[in-house]
Amino acid sequence: MLQTINQILSKEKKLAIGLMSGTSLDGIDVAVLEISHSNSEMDIQLIAFETIPYTQQEKQDILQLCQPSTSTVDKICAWNVKLGHKFAKAATKVVTNAGMDISQIDFVGSHGQTIYHSPDEQATLQIGELAVIAEETGVLTVGDFRPSDMAVGGQGAPLVPFVDYLLFASEEKNRVLLNIGGISNISVLPKKAQPDEIIAFDTGPGNVLLDAIVRIVTEGEKRYDEGGSLASGGRVSQDWLTKMMREDSYLDQDIPKSTGREYYTTQKAQSLYEEGRTQGLSDPDIIATISAYTAHSIADQLYRFVEPVCQIDEIIVSGGGAHNGFILRELEKTTKIQVQIMEDLGFSSDAKEAVAFAVLGYQFLHGLPNTLPSATGARRQVSMGKLAFPLKKSSF
Amino acid sequence: MLQTINQILSKEKKLAIGLMSGTSLDGIDVAVLEISHSNSEMDIQLIAFETIPYTQQEKQDILQLCQPSTSTVDKICAWNVKLGHKFAKAATKVVTNAGMDISQIDFVGSHGQTIYHSPDEQATLQIGELAVIAEETGVLTVGDFRPSDMAVGGQGAPLVPFVDYLLFASEEKNRVLLNIGGISNISVLPKKAQPDEIIAFDTGPGNVLLDAIVRIVTEGEKRYDEGGSLASGGRVSQDWLTKMMREDSYLDQDIPKSTGREYYTTQKAQSLYEEGRTQGLSDPDIIATISAYTAHSIADQLYRFVEPVCQIDEIIVSGGGAHNGFILRELEKTTKIQVQIMEDLGFSSDAKEAVAFAVLGYQFLHGLPNTLPSATGARRQVSMGKLAFPLKKSSF
Repeated sequence: MLQTINQILSKEKKLAIGLMSGTSLDGIDVAVLEISHSNSEMDIQLIAFETIPYTQQEKQDILQLCQPSTSTVDKICAWNVKLGHKFAKAATKVVTNAGMDISQIDFVGSHGQTIYHSPDEQATLQIGELAVIAEETGVLTVGDFRPSDMAVGGQGAPLVPFVDYLLFASEEKNRVLLNIGGISNISVLPKKAQPDEIIAFDTGPGNVLLDAIVRIVTEGEKRYDEGGSLASGGRVSQDWLTKMMREDSYLDQDIPKSTGREYYTTQKAQSLYEEGRTQGLSDPDIIATISAYTAHSIADQLYRFVEPVCQIDEIIVSGGGAHNGFILRELEKTTKIQVQIMEDLGFSSDAKEAVAFAVLGYQFLHGLPNTLPSATGARRQVSMGKLAFPLKKSSF
Repeated sequence: MLQTINQILSKEKKLAIGLMSGTSLDGIDVAVLEISHSNSEMDIQLIAFETIPYTQQEKQDILQLCQPSTSTVDKICAWNVKLGHKFAKAATKVVTNAGMDISQIDFVGSHGQTIYHSPDEQATLQIGELAVIAEETGVLTVGDFRPSDMAVGGQGAPLVPFVDYLLFASEEKNRVLLNIGGISNISVLPKKAQPDEIIAFDTGPGNVLLDAIVRIVTEGEKRYDEGGSLASGGRVSQDWLTKMMREDSYLDQDIPKSTGREYYTTQKAQSLYEEGRTQGLSDPDIIATISAYTAHSIADQLYRFVEPVCQIDEIIVSGGGAHNGFILRELEKTTKIQVQIMEDLGFSSDAKEAVAFAVLGYQFLHGLPNTLPSATGARRQVSMGKLAFPLKKSSF
């Protein structure tokens, strides 16, 4: 194992795979990248990125694992292995599609699939067995990051701000990195910031409510509002928007904080949709207002928690929401801050989270910290992760 | 991390803690030991051993996690962390009791608490969060062994035969190492054996049925039959014993094989007890017959699967059953083979399994294999385990 790690670290450029599957359960994000140097000098180059989608059946089965009422130990165990195989296959496929061979890869950093996250109990569970990924790909695998931060009192989230800090902190600008996934989260990177100056937290809903309502409205035909086109055909109900914002107690919570599907549930989306209909709103109006809810809750959180300490120069958006023009326009209109997408900086929005978990794994292999206690609320920095390695040959 | 591992490996003698909690849910076994050399040259010296018992409530709560009908994802996650803390505290306590400081320990090898094991699905789950153990003790921790063997088609069990082979293989004698825990398992070590000549499998019931019936008979006053004294006051019903053996389909299964609480359930113990009563047997007779069932099922499996390939010279017994004189006598009577307990060889019966997981962790840190495919049915040897390490100081 030591030999393997030493070999990896002695290379100037390391080939890595980052694997991520978010709460939106769209599929497995696979990033293939080249990494060199570490800490703030880190340099990355994206080689390939694909999302290997889950089938509807898989999505439903995994959702069952996330609910205490339908989750059972046998199903959790079986899916841990099943997803391990699926992650390994996804990694191999994307590497092959990129004209490379899996044996060229130095290491895998895998987030896994979160099926439970409860910071109050310091409890979290990401499945997708690391031993299966390591043995099936033949590549050293680092993953299961969140429990390490929780072990020192952190919320185990958000983790990406550390990577935002390494890759995007600027000498000249106060930047906000905004990721609109199922949930929206931000990393505030004041210019010339030290690690303990980074503010990061989940701002509230991303696409989680919106996607659920799009599925209701289109009777399952569409899974999300592509480009924000459905929202653009409607009108935002200011009254209802104000009411939703007021009733969202997460927005009032102090930072650092994190949230998830446990709060922004499918049932919540369902009852919001019904509420909209009761108020006589059309489907496009409902979708527009729910989209505005995402943008305005982000603006609200910036106003409450960020502006008092740091005047923002620009917002850089990644995640599925970066493709939703309606949300981006609402955000710019409300915040009066320049909104860019990650592509404007030469990075891939879609690949960002998968890349991040390769970066966390890379720091782990160097024995370096890979957390920001200012973001997670942990008592101290740790080097999150667990390592599984495939035995190349029996030496026995 | 590399530095830490290099430091550990450069020492001639390494101080380790082995942590194990078995299916009998008695408590957490903590072994503190000194290890030197690796593979067949390995040498170990036990420094301290204690079992930190679970409370009745804890035992009940953990049992709930093991049953699909009562297990839920939130409880599993919460207990994973709770047991992590309990394992860390147990380790620290035993080290302190031995007059040492936890900072002297080089590494921890932790088996965790199995709450599910289903080889057919390649699925298994041991809880007791490694990141919590590592961060709370400040000691590098290796654990979560079983999934790695399952990832290459193994049953993820039995794991101890590998350690039996390293520590007990003899130049002169064909030995059987027998562990009577909740389940009984054997490692057959022919003299001068190569790794692929080792036969190992679960033979069937250990104390799992016996303990359950002792609790029924004593109305919970006794948790096991100390020294076999209850059994010694009764008489074995040969007819009923023969019937039980005939009806036990696990005994007919081909090797390699493993079993657990999923087959030898509390319900099975309950209905066996009722069956005994219906046949007019006294409580001591029932206990004697159930104890004989343990001994005779072991003898049966030796006769069917071991004697055809290797004539056994001696049986060396460890585990809780090593203290049950009644079972040992029945075993010797039935097999006509010399039965010794581990103490006769200068080792501790009780500490054996906890020691084993320190040994597996030790091989992992050396990047060496720590499995016997001939025992687990795996396609090849792997270096099982995952590593979590505490960050000594932030270098950021």
